[in-house]
Amino acid sequence: MSVGTTVSRTDTTLRLADLRKLMAVHNIDVYIVPSEDAHQSEYIAPVDARRAFISGFTGSAGCAVITPTKASLSTDGRYFLQAEQELDTNWELLKQGLPDVPTWQEWALREAEGGKNVGVDASLISAAQAKSLAGKLKNRKGGELIGMDLNLIDSVWGEKQPERPKEALRILGLEFAGKSFADKLVEIRKDIEKNKGCGLIVSMLDEIAWLFNLRGNDIPYNPVFFSYAFITPTEAILYIDEAKITEKIRESLGETVTIKPYNAIFDDIKAFGEATATSDKKLLVTSSVSWALTKSVDENKISTIKAPIEASKAVKNETEVEGMRKAHIRDGAAQIQYFAWLEKVLLKGDIYDEVSAADKLEEFRKEKEHFVGLSFPTISSAGSNGAIIHYQPEKSTCARVEKDKIYLCDSGAQFLDGTTDSTRTLHYGTPTEEEKRSYTLVLKGHIAVARSVFPKGSSGFILDILARQYLWRAGLDYRHGTGHGVGSFLNVHEGPIGIGTRMQYNEVPLEVGMFISNEPGYYEDGKYGIRIENVVLVVEKETPNNFGDKKYYGFETVTMVPMCKRLTDPSMLDEDEKKWLNEYHSEVYEKTKSFFKADDYTLEWLKRETSPV
Amino acid sequence: MSVGTTVSRTDTTLRLADLRKLMAVHNIDVYIVPSEDAHQSEYIAPVDARRAFISGFTGSAGCAVITPTKASLSTDGRYFLQAEQELDTNWELLKQGLPDVPTWQEWALREAEGGKNVGVDASLISAAQAKSLAGKLKNRKGGELIGMDLNLIDSVWGEKQPERPKEALRILGLEFAGKSFADKLVEIRKDIEKNKGCGLIVSMLDEIAWLFNLRGNDIPYNPVFFSYAFITPTEAILYIDEAKITEKIRESLGETVTIKPYNAIFDDIKAFGEATATSDKKLLVTSSVSWALTKSVDENKISTIKAPIEASKAVKNETEVEGMRKAHIRDGAAQIQYFAWLEKVLLKGDIYDEVSAADKLEEFRKEKEHFVGLSFPTISSAGSNGAIIHYQPEKSTCARVEKDKIYLCDSGAQFLDGTTDSTRTLHYGTPTEEEKRSYTLVLKGHIAVARSVFPKGSSGFILDILARQYLWRAGLDYRHGTGHGVGSFLNVHEGPIGIGTRMQYNEVPLEVGMFISNEPGYYEDGKYGIRIENVVLVVEKETPNNFGDKKYYGFETVTMVPMCKRLTDPSMLDEDEKKWLNEYHSEVYEKTKSFFKADDYTLEWLKRETSPV
Repeated sequence: MSVGTTVSRTDTTLRLADLRKLMAVHNIDVYIVPSEDAHQSEYIAPVDARRAFISGFTGSAGCAVITPTKASLSTDGRYFLQAEQELDTNWELLKQGLPDVPTWQEWALREAEGGKNVGVDASLISAAQAKSLAGKLKNRKGGELIGMDLNLIDSVWGEKQPERPKEALRILGLEFAGKSFADKLVEIRKDIEKNKGCGLIVSMLDEIAWLFNLRGNDIPYNPVFFSYAFITPTEAILYIDEAKITEKIRESLGETVTIKPYNAIFDDIKAFGEATATSDKKLLVTSSVSWALTKSVDENKISTIKAPIEASKAVKNETEVEGMRKAHIRDGAAQIQYFAWLEKVLLKGDIYDEVSAADKLEEFRKEKEHFVGLSFPTISSAGSNGAIIHYQPEKSTCARVEKDKIYLCDSGAQFLDGTTDSTRTLHYGTPTEEEKRSYTLVLKGHIAVARSVFPKGSSGFILDILARQYLWRAGLDYRHGTGHGVGSFLNVHEGPIGIGTRMQYNEVPLEVGMFISNEPGYYEDGKYGIRIENVVLVVEKETPNNFGDKKYYGFETVTMVPMCKRLTDPSMLDEDEKKWLNEYHSEVYEKTKSFFKADDYTLEWLKRETSPV
Repeated sequence: MSVGTTVSRTDTTLRLADLRKLMAVHNIDVYIVPSEDAHQSEYIAPVDARRAFISGFTGSAGCAVITPTKASLSTDGRYFLQAEQELDTNWELLKQGLPDVPTWQEWALREAEGGKNVGVDASLISAAQAKSLAGKLKNRKGGELIGMDLNLIDSVWGEKQPERPKEALRILGLEFAGKSFADKLVEIRKDIEKNKGCGLIVSMLDEIAWLFNLRGNDIPYNPVFFSYAFITPTEAILYIDEAKITEKIRESLGETVTIKPYNAIFDDIKAFGEATATSDKKLLVTSSVSWALTKSVDENKISTIKAPIEASKAVKNETEVEGMRKAHIRDGAAQIQYFAWLEKVLLKGDIYDEVSAADKLEEFRKEKEHFVGLSFPTISSAGSNGAIIHYQPEKSTCARVEKDKIYLCDSGAQFLDGTTDSTRTLHYGTPTEEEKRSYTLVLKGHIAVARSVFPKGSSGFILDILARQYLWRAGLDYRHGTGHGVGSFLNVHEGPIGIGTRMQYNEVPLEVGMFISNEPGYYEDGKYGIRIENVVLVVEKETPNNFGDKKYYGFETVTMVPMCKRLTDPSMLDEDEKKWLNEYHSEVYEKTKSFFKADDYTLEWLKRETSPV
């Protein structure tokens, strides 16, 4: 899944004037406004939407750079159209990836030539990014890169800036977490020792939530809370708004955890760096740790390592695995109710738009045990809207769902025992031959990934071609990845694994216990979008041989929702593919039928949709 | 294909004693003996087999490091057994890839601790390797890395060292090269300009041969000659044993080329570096250029670029493409004669061993037009020898070819119009079910690569899984790459492309006009080896759509030899695979039948082997 927004233009003239006054006061010639928060979160809270505030551009990716006379906004191909519609004439749009278009770094470097000062809030940029930019500035005879403690956008925004969320915490019991905080801490400390560290800074919000078995609600759809953690061989400090720490939470953490205010980490790290300056051991950070956190410490004292918590978190324990399976069955039941209901109302001629339909899906989900909320805004898209990959319908402008148009629904939920994410593409009338052909090519790719067997040590990078091969043969493709890691009652997009062409995916082997999405698609601009997404679990496969004693892995599909029969052309499937589809449908039926004991209509619909091809 | 050798142990005691005396004279505490020549050639001439001379280990990969009291030889898994058999007790074997085994660099660093001097012939190590090693020496408080002009092994070897080959050059006419030296020079100069260079050092022998449209015979099976080249915007200098430059060759190069002695490049580069020291433009080198060539030049003056000649050479022009197609048809005809003949003699009960059989194959090849020689030593292997991937039979020890054992034959030739390389695995009796299953799994992978369609910009890295997927499903695999680039009357292994898991393959997209091998295999140790290898050409594919206006590419198979019917289980092939196999066989028949007009036996054999499944 991916998310987007509606489009309207903001007049940024006054905001920019205010910002430029502040830049002059602070002696800043070029000011950088990244889109990330201080935790390099993929999705941010409204309080952190500084780049959107200053530029008017609300997409999830992009960087703004402002000088006394110019302002540029750089973003990627997903957002060219939206940025053109949202930016006013104060802004120059830098379309990343087009020939001869500078990156924001290049643009900033050019503007900084001749010794200009470049400013950035040091908490919003990683140490590595800062180092690279400072080095280039030096080479290009620009001025200094100034990592500021103050955020100029916050000063311009003033009272109208939303407050930092103060949502209550929730303790995730062992029955859902499967492993105690104390046990996790023991492992992390082993990692610290292995990496010859004297301490580890943790700044990613989902890593902190996982480590402490706590959940929050500070970022929409992401059950995380604003905090930092600092772990040493003897101490574990959680930096957080202390008001959130109730007696019960205090108890759940045990006596070994020290609670300190959210921003106290900055002084602590500085003091720790000084106190351990002569130690052989290093202060361990990950690539997402901000420049603000590390700039007070001698560079030689810092060692950047692969995030050990991210790696541990990605491999779900038995309790989490079982929870994910169950959550996906419940979630599947809600989707089955929804798609059966949708067929009934559409065939009856009732009128539903993309938003009111999605609301009904949420109703079905809410009834299910352990439901907490959605895991991202539902992508409920009819006809040509389905071709907008990060489409998000808005009540005022959205389209009507129609029985004769392809309907793409990408949705998911947060349950106490797991996070779900799946996409079904449906048709309730008579699809065209072209629509069936496209759907079946996507389905063949989906099945190829689902059925794949690969030696232990293989990464998701190498599986990507399996999903695309049939589309390629037809000269077709899709412009997004094939899979992303999924959290367990955590973020729906979770590192470090993925199936796709990003080189970083090749650095992480798939391990038993990891959950990843399998979501090939095809998008015919202006006509329709197709995506078929299941969440799958990496499992060991029984193979007739075990060459090299390697162990061979594959996937178990945990999403339990039928594929669309009307859109499937069985003549394009080979025997192995039909067998997979029939076995999957039989499993969907068996695992979800008990939800429809008092709902004959849905049960009949399910029977029909899961009958063998 | 890959090559190997027979095994015998050399007593290195006296050689090592002589070397240690010289080390003392030159104040060297740790001496490194790489296996490469001064051109980083994959295969070397006997004169350059210094590492084999000093250690006794004759494998193609490995590095020796000698101290006053110790000697280590590091090599990879292909050679563990051979190294154990060849090394005497003076040597410690470092098995690369096994846990807790140091690399040769780590071993050398440990021995150098406390300020010891580390010496190496600077012409045998690349500048990047030298820089990395020198940096680590400094960090580990070792001494200095000394890049020596003198080679101590040559001094020990003395008069018994083979001479540097002085084989005659051959002019490759336009009818084979397809593009004049002058035209190639224009393109290289464009690359130099694009890279802001004042000159380009060329040290790879096949790049020089390609650029000047000359061929030699200085390294067995590789039609190259010892030389360097230096190209500037106004000059083109060929450094070579001047005795090789006949009047005709002098003429063919035109007036723009300067000929200088082989070793004159070292002084020239030094002088050039000094003369251009204040220029903004850089001296361009590739990663294979030796430390000896660059150490006289200020580091800031040097820019390491991706080899432009290697990249141009990999994309064959129309003449070369047509030549490669024709050479493969001729070569296929020779193999067809051979495999038909082999069936006849084996069924008759005649006795042939792996070497005498291979000699017969060479006879058939020699009769063909434009034949120059073999492109590598024929891997003619019966039964369990086929499981030794780099097996090379020796007359005195080789096995008998038998009709009831799998026979694997990996062979190729140099023709004036192209280089060939293919492997067929045959059985002339009744193979077991297991043998047929293994063969057909390999064949399915071969066909999956041959039939693949992928968007322009894709690399061979991503195709590797297509070849392995059916083996993996059975818990099987093979421990080598799936494909390597092939030269045109040049080296049979040619960069920069490949199909396999090496990350560097992912950096180079496949382009129309490139030739690459498609050679999955399976090896059952102690029993048999299976490999099916064709050379394929990257071509543009007609697809029903052209999503993203990307263009879609695929392969045209140019090797023309039937697969083995007896080893193929048609029930394991799907309709698409059968269709590919039948079409391929029909093409093999049509393209080669004219060679057997006066050879009814072979024609009948070909008809039978290419009849539809």
